[in-house]
Amino acid sequence: MINCLKKTSEILHARENEISPVGFVPTMGNLHEGHISLLEQALREFKVVYFSIFVNPKQFGPSEDFHRYPRTLENDLSLIEKSIKSFPGSKVVVFAPENAEEIFPPSHHEVLSVCGLSTILEGKIRPGHFDGVATVVYRLFDLIKPSKAYFGLKDFQQYLVIKQMVKDLSLPIKIQGMPIIRETQGLALSSRNQYLSPDQKSLALLLFNTLTKIKEIIGHKKMNLPKAKLFIEDIIKDPNWNYLELRDSETFSEDLTSSTNITILAVYQMGTTRLLDNMQVEVQ
Amino acid sequence: MINCLKKTSEILHARENEISPVGFVPTMGNLHEGHISLLEQALREFKVVYFSIFVNPKQFGPSEDFHRYPRTLENDLSLIEKSIKSFPGSKVVVFAPENAEEIFPPSHHEVLSVCGLSTILEGKIRPGHFDGVATVVYRLFDLIKPSKAYFGLKDFQQYLVIKQMVKDLSLPIKIQGMPIIRETQGLALSSRNQYLSPDQKSLALLLFNTLTKIKEIIGHKKMNLPKAKLFIEDIIKDPNWNYLELRDSETFSEDLTSSTNITILAVYQMGTTRLLDNMQVEVQ
Repeated sequence: MINCLKKTSEILHARENEISPVGFVPTMGNLHEGHISLLEQALREFKVVYFSIFVNPKQFGPSEDFHRYPRTLENDLSLIEKSIKSFPGSKVVVFAPENAEEIFPPSHHEVLSVCGLSTILEGKIRPGHFDGVATVVYRLFDLIKPSKAYFGLKDFQQYLVIKQMVKDLSLPIKIQGMPIIRETQGLALSSRNQYLSPDQKSLALLLFNTLTKIKEIIGHKKMNLPKAKLFIEDIIKDPNWNYLELRDSETFSEDLTSSTNITILAVYQMGTTRLLDNMQVEVQ
Repeated sequence: MINCLKKTSEILHARENEISPVGFVPTMGNLHEGHISLLEQALREFKVVYFSIFVNPKQFGPSEDFHRYPRTLENDLSLIEKSIKSFPGSKVVVFAPENAEEIFPPSHHEVLSVCGLSTILEGKIRPGHFDGVATVVYRLFDLIKPSKAYFGLKDFQQYLVIKQMVKDLSLPIKIQGMPIIRETQGLALSSRNQYLSPDQKSLALLLFNTLTKIKEIIGHKKMNLPKAKLFIEDIIKDPNWNYLELRDSETFSEDLTSSTNITILAVYQMGTTRLLDNMQVEVQ
């Protein structure tokens, strides 16, 4: 069963009448297999899953792609419909607000910010982005009151921001990160991939291949980190790398001395499209 | 009965074992009659009142008076002890964290910000101040889970920031503003008044007298607002006025066209001490 609601009042009403605990998948729509993997995980764990489709203006900068961000509600609903067939007896409530005022009425002023985490890497390049993310996610959590929410690990820094927010504000919600879904050759799925020309799309493999190469150089051994860092130093001479960095997967610190798991994070700029990806490697 | 706790673990333990709903008065200590009026109002409404004394570093700018802010815990406790005598059977739990890490452990990163409200008037002069206030108040609310919290209306903008935060985050807490308490001649009570020399203290009456004069000029009539504005324009030629403004008491807007109540807000700079005050006037 699938139910698509467009008003906050409708979602509040639906939620109030829900007896079971609910899982929640927040998205900006234009669904691909990455999003569907979150939905399916939620459906494995909950009989009732709330799924939001909302292109949140607060997380886009003034010169970013808010207006051209792909909006494909009908197609999204068919994909959800298709997924739910494997979960008989389950229910998905889609919340697709018809305008931003449904989420942020003019009287809403609160902004949530995760200090430190919000202003490095992706946050440094996109000032205010993570504040916009934290603010909309809080608002959706508040409306939907899920027991658990699912986020793709492609946006690893976003996942950490949300986890930190939930911890600092003591929200009673579990946060589950789900593995990156990739095309056969390795390109991480993203709604923004459709901005790429066929030529750009094959060039984009550079991102996956570079991350793989760095992972190979590290080869699970901390002693290889200096070698990996030299390799990175050389690579980022190409100014199309917005960043390419190693961070501790738990603390997000640059200090990897006591790390047991490292995340290699990168953004490669392909024309006007920013391709974001990351890869984790356990180290000894 | 009065109980003074210094650790977050102790306050959590005490709160968990509380059966009654609790009222809450957050302060920075160095108590005066203004604070005591909040406590007494809370005691009129609740059998159990939590009262925090915490000089919150996050709401002070780098060049502000965090280090010299008066800390007088013993005297504060005697004042509370004295008040509670008029409320037999009541209990006050004082939370006086012995250091800032009790409130903000190093792992805490979240900052709350009330857009718009936080960056005008007092927030313009003290960047980050209201974010620090909102952040500590959320944290204290989260630890203490009060049904109602009491704030002095001397810090009128702070009161609005807290009300907006509570509304936007749907916190189940009532916010009660309490009237400004003044010395006989009119100076609003403030812990910072003790920074004033006797001469400065008598000069400080200028603030109260000016607000009173503006209130008289308005005389409850909207048609007198232009006259009041001209009077203000003339007054603020003295650069010691950090600001002196009229705002709608509900919306905090400068547009007073449909106002029924107006707040006159001012800060006068007396040497290194900023004297803050406000006065409300109903208008027709």
